[in-house]
Amino acid sequence: MGPGPSDVASSVLRAMSQPLVGHLDPVFVNMMEEIKTMLRVVFQTKNEMTFPVSGTGSAGMEFCFVNLIEPGDDVIVGVNGVFGNRMVDVAERCGARVTKVESEWGRIIDAQQIREALQKVPKPKLVAIVHAETSTGALTPVEEISKLAHDAGALFLLDTVTSLGGCPVKIDEWQVDAVYSATQKCLSCPPGLSPVSLSARAMEVATRRKKKVQSWYLDVNLLSSYWGQERVYHHTAPISMNYALHEALRLVLHEGLEKRFRRHEENHLMLKRGLSEMGVGLASQEGHQLWQLNAAKVPEGVDDAKLRKRLLTEHNIEVGAGLGSLKGKIIRVGLMGETSKREKVEKFLAAFRAIAKP
Amino acid sequence: MGPGPSDVASSVLRAMSQPLVGHLDPVFVNMMEEIKTMLRVVFQTKNEMTFPVSGTGSAGMEFCFVNLIEPGDDVIVGVNGVFGNRMVDVAERCGARVTKVESEWGRIIDAQQIREALQKVPKPKLVAIVHAETSTGALTPVEEISKLAHDAGALFLLDTVTSLGGCPVKIDEWQVDAVYSATQKCLSCPPGLSPVSLSARAMEVATRRKKKVQSWYLDVNLLSSYWGQERVYHHTAPISMNYALHEALRLVLHEGLEKRFRRHEENHLMLKRGLSEMGVGLASQEGHQLWQLNAAKVPEGVDDAKLRKRLLTEHNIEVGAGLGSLKGKIIRVGLMGETSKREKVEKFLAAFRAIAKP
Repeated sequence: MGPGPSDVASSVLRAMSQPLVGHLDPVFVNMMEEIKTMLRVVFQTKNEMTFPVSGTGSAGMEFCFVNLIEPGDDVIVGVNGVFGNRMVDVAERCGARVTKVESEWGRIIDAQQIREALQKVPKPKLVAIVHAETSTGALTPVEEISKLAHDAGALFLLDTVTSLGGCPVKIDEWQVDAVYSATQKCLSCPPGLSPVSLSARAMEVATRRKKKVQSWYLDVNLLSSYWGQERVYHHTAPISMNYALHEALRLVLHEGLEKRFRRHEENHLMLKRGLSEMGVGLASQEGHQLWQLNAAKVPEGVDDAKLRKRLLTEHNIEVGAGLGSLKGKIIRVGLMGETSKREKVEKFLAAFRAIAKP
Repeated sequence: MGPGPSDVASSVLRAMSQPLVGHLDPVFVNMMEEIKTMLRVVFQTKNEMTFPVSGTGSAGMEFCFVNLIEPGDDVIVGVNGVFGNRMVDVAERCGARVTKVESEWGRIIDAQQIREALQKVPKPKLVAIVHAETSTGALTPVEEISKLAHDAGALFLLDTVTSLGGCPVKIDEWQVDAVYSATQKCLSCPPGLSPVSLSARAMEVATRRKKKVQSWYLDVNLLSSYWGQERVYHHTAPISMNYALHEALRLVLHEGLEKRFRRHEENHLMLKRGLSEMGVGLASQEGHQLWQLNAAKVPEGVDDAKLRKRLLTEHNIEVGAGLGSLKGKIIRVGLMGETSKREKVEKFLAAFRAIAKP
């Protein structure tokens, strides 16, 4: 019940352990097409360039920036937790001039803050925010910020590592130009792949670059020939990880997105209610709290490390620690994908009550 | 029997499908240490910085270049196949000025060619060659080239994607400063990780850079805190892939390196003899032929695509096509790791005889 990897269904583990075929084998090529099709449904997009990058979520983040940014480009990044800061670092390594828009950890990035930043930096190449901040449990609304970015002529980039598969992510409706996620959160697949999607507008920027993409491994101009119809060998795709993702996506679609989101919401509300009855609140902003990641405040006088250790050793429950300015102040309880279950919430609340009740 | 992925032992598939633990869980941290220790044995090195990069072999290639190269550095790269050309592309994307040392595909890079290049470019930052060219089946001797590089004050980089685990790779004895490999060749593990090792000298270059490493995901200065003793969260490691690599390495060491190399040699010689009896030679340079990847010349009047298709559909044997200047002229028969078996060679020879015998 930490911030990921989440529990993985046994059928996903079974799929992953099937014998290997080649990365250009017709069986695998067919599977690649099915993965792309299922990812489009999950991302709610028609983007042709939708596929899993052969690395973990941070590789997907880097994929988006290296393909879209050239040295000297202005970039606005919303920072309200660990992953906003990571985007700043990645963008700067691409040579971007980064303007940070900061919120207190636990709070969202407000559209008004982006509006103000655009007055100082009126023509950015890109505006980037984190949809669901795994480090704080805050869910930033997307639509107005996307509109502001586009009105300024910028591309809009969204981190959906923790949101995808756990709450609505609407890439086309929200006009997101570049998005990355990860397999080990609400898709409940082992870590190792990063689903990404680029809009036609983003692809145009990537294909018309002046300078080659600084990463060969993540260059979408090369990857599109392997994941597209040409099937030109680029790198050897992680075959087994793709078997796993194929089955994990099948399970997501079998449950249905709406039903899955409702499940995540209900279990979150049950956890929140139970904690509240013990006088324990969430550290994330009211009205913008993630269903899949709950930043429970550590009660006064309780040592968070001891609390986590007792949860693990006495109750076999792993949760995450607070990071950065929330270190020692919260524990992070994940209810992601297969881990978002009523009985898990009950078990956690009973354990928490036994250990931490004032 | 293609150029990889090779067959994977059932115990490796079983290990890969074990339930997930967290990427900072003590059980996983202990496994990381064991993987590092076993990799050092396989690479025949004492290098502290020896671990698997969370990406496929090409990510390992990029890891080596992005950490060691800064814009404007001179680099000498041996090019005698696909992967030498890939190194040139990757190095140039890091801002290197690259001098290519080219050999005909199928031939090795000769130390004399490097000596001549060093007369034109006397102070390169790095000299890089491919040990075992998967595209041609040639094995370039390392020691003299390594010495020439060091005499010129350069670092020496070696691609061991196809050699590691199939023939001797002696990182310390050969004084290799940076090396990368892949899991899906002679280690017989699914693709998805790239074992790498950096010498103390290479680490000094990486830590004393003027400019930040252009890739956040592959920055060894950050990765060393996660794979080292601090265990600072960097990215979520591909847990299941590391389970698989742990078991695959255990099998390699259980067999023993010398015995494993002898097996690869014997099966290669048996294949070569069988082909020779049919009047079929290997396209790679005599005296420098890889044991694990055999570039069999396509007999006169035989269409290589039809030959490969009949091998696959009539005999259930997958082999690789020729690439670049060898396209249509060779088929690539892999005898890597679990695939290097006497009965596989026999089966292949019988099938080849049935289809292609003049």
